[in-house]
Amino acid sequence: MDFVARSPVVAVAGATGAVGVEMLKCLEKRNFPLSSLKLLASKRSAGTTMRFRGEDLPVTELTEQSFAGVDIALFSAGGSISKAFAPAVAAAGAVMIDNSSAFRMNPDVPLVVPEINPQAAAQHKGIIANPNCSTIIAAVPLWPLHRKNRIKRLIASTYQAASGAGWAAMEELKNATRAALDGKPFTQTIIPHPYAFNLFSHNTTVDPVTLANEEEGKLIKETRKIFGDAEIRISATCVRVPVLRAHCEALTVEFERPMSREEATAILSDAPGVRIVDDIAANHFPMPNEASEQDDVLVGRIRADMSDPSGHSLQLFVSGDQLLKGAALNAVQIAELLH
Amino acid sequence: MDFVARSPVVAVAGATGAVGVEMLKCLEKRNFPLSSLKLLASKRSAGTTMRFRGEDLPVTELTEQSFAGVDIALFSAGGSISKAFAPAVAAAGAVMIDNSSAFRMNPDVPLVVPEINPQAAAQHKGIIANPNCSTIIAAVPLWPLHRKNRIKRLIASTYQAASGAGWAAMEELKNATRAALDGKPFTQTIIPHPYAFNLFSHNTTVDPVTLANEEEGKLIKETRKIFGDAEIRISATCVRVPVLRAHCEALTVEFERPMSREEATAILSDAPGVRIVDDIAANHFPMPNEASEQDDVLVGRIRADMSDPSGHSLQLFVSGDQLLKGAALNAVQIAELLH
Repeated sequence: MDFVARSPVVAVAGATGAVGVEMLKCLEKRNFPLSSLKLLASKRSAGTTMRFRGEDLPVTELTEQSFAGVDIALFSAGGSISKAFAPAVAAAGAVMIDNSSAFRMNPDVPLVVPEINPQAAAQHKGIIANPNCSTIIAAVPLWPLHRKNRIKRLIASTYQAASGAGWAAMEELKNATRAALDGKPFTQTIIPHPYAFNLFSHNTTVDPVTLANEEEGKLIKETRKIFGDAEIRISATCVRVPVLRAHCEALTVEFERPMSREEATAILSDAPGVRIVDDIAANHFPMPNEASEQDDVLVGRIRADMSDPSGHSLQLFVSGDQLLKGAALNAVQIAELLH
Repeated sequence: MDFVARSPVVAVAGATGAVGVEMLKCLEKRNFPLSSLKLLASKRSAGTTMRFRGEDLPVTELTEQSFAGVDIALFSAGGSISKAFAPAVAAAGAVMIDNSSAFRMNPDVPLVVPEINPQAAAQHKGIIANPNCSTIIAAVPLWPLHRKNRIKRLIASTYQAASGAGWAAMEELKNATRAALDGKPFTQTIIPHPYAFNLFSHNTTVDPVTLANEEEGKLIKETRKIFGDAEIRISATCVRVPVLRAHCEALTVEFERPMSREEATAILSDAPGVRIVDDIAANHFPMPNEASEQDDVLVGRIRADMSDPSGHSLQLFVSGDQLLKGAALNAVQIAELLH
């Protein structure tokens, strides 16, 4: 693969999913220098077309033969698909940028947020992993603070959108809510708890030893790997709320040395991928409706943690688009690092 | 007032509001021994009737003359109304049980959660304050733990329902959501931020010094007063979510000595006003839809705080009905303490 000589051939596996659709939009919007784009999906979705740069591109079935001539394969079709097709991608000499959790904690696989550890991407052995959405959305604003003053401890409470469970979950939230408003019964098939005007502890398996659910475990382990700091003490409570596509997180952060609101605000003002929304007079802080379809993570409620009189702890409230920076955008940014 | 000799005459000021309606239901359901019930509301709502124990009781206008012969006046009509009518209630020799924030931090006014500090009610000088909803819902499960092993530090992230802003806010959430589903424009008049499938930092004024909003300030100060422990270090992030009538809170709690999940679970199993919902295998934890219209605060996700290796910290997720234990039920329970 010689990206200096020519623009890469890019494949998107899972092109018709919620994240796949956003990957196409990101490639187009960022004018990604690709020579051709191959759209791959399950047999069920194959045969349709998707619009890209004014053309209707065919969606073909994802098979082991799909990767001939491909340089970069963006995967967002679930962990089992990523695992099943990784050998075919490698055999074709393509680099896999994988949005699933399949390879994230593999020590041979870089886990990359381009604003944080772009250099890690260069160490890849054929696969680069895209972190989990709730990890990325916290990590982008925390990293510039951590660089200035090491984070010792992080306590995160999340407010996560339906989109993390895919298009079908977003549609189910809307349909369940309409039924509730109409006083009609509705049977959910995607999300295991009533979702209309309701919230629930993240619907992933709870580890019987740590008692963290999978989402919480990802946030904890992936943050340490991305930051290259195995000693950060992290706990998380991950909750799904009836919001469509942007996550929020309430973060309590303890630093090695004192950190003031003013210093943190100054650092975050210059941080890539971050936009400060912290208007105390107007009571205007990060909200999912304003983070949706935006590239930046919104950060506000920047303040001293009143429960830590030492001045070492801050609290923040952040919001980021789950489908963009939480998934598709970050993956496309990783692809940009490769050339 | 001699409650031994006769059942009290009870007045409800703000009877037609979201909390007032629930106060009537609680008085009826709990078979409160009242000799008569007087329903008071603003001029606008006066003239209607409300059903109580099979009778249609008239709603009359709240005036300074309303309290003749009244023994207990339950107020839930906003702080300015409570302040304005407190002298009239006192002049009539009645006890005011006030659901507003008007008197909560007044050192002469007991702030009472009957499961926690019932003895404080006896010290009243004419007014007993009902704590804020988010305070009560955290305090009920935290108190039995605190009694066994002092809480040094509490970090709370809330997920608060529309009902805290009244009936009109609940209706506005439904109407805004229906409009969003229909793709129609909708102008909110009650809640200052878009509420359909959205969430936002609690819409109360942010203190320019502490940077806590009023809701967070209440949770911090009221918890210390109710627990009689001014030293507990507390920080809170209060967020309103698109849920109708039950609040949730993610709590991180540091104790003076180690506290295990098993010990906390055993303590909470016997705690009044608490129901444990902590089914790890079924991924079934406290949810607003199951806390709604229930008297108990639901508690689950009871686990060691992974960010505190000392074993002194736990995390919990709680949910309680904002209108019942967060307001009306607690007020009626205070009234029960008076006889």
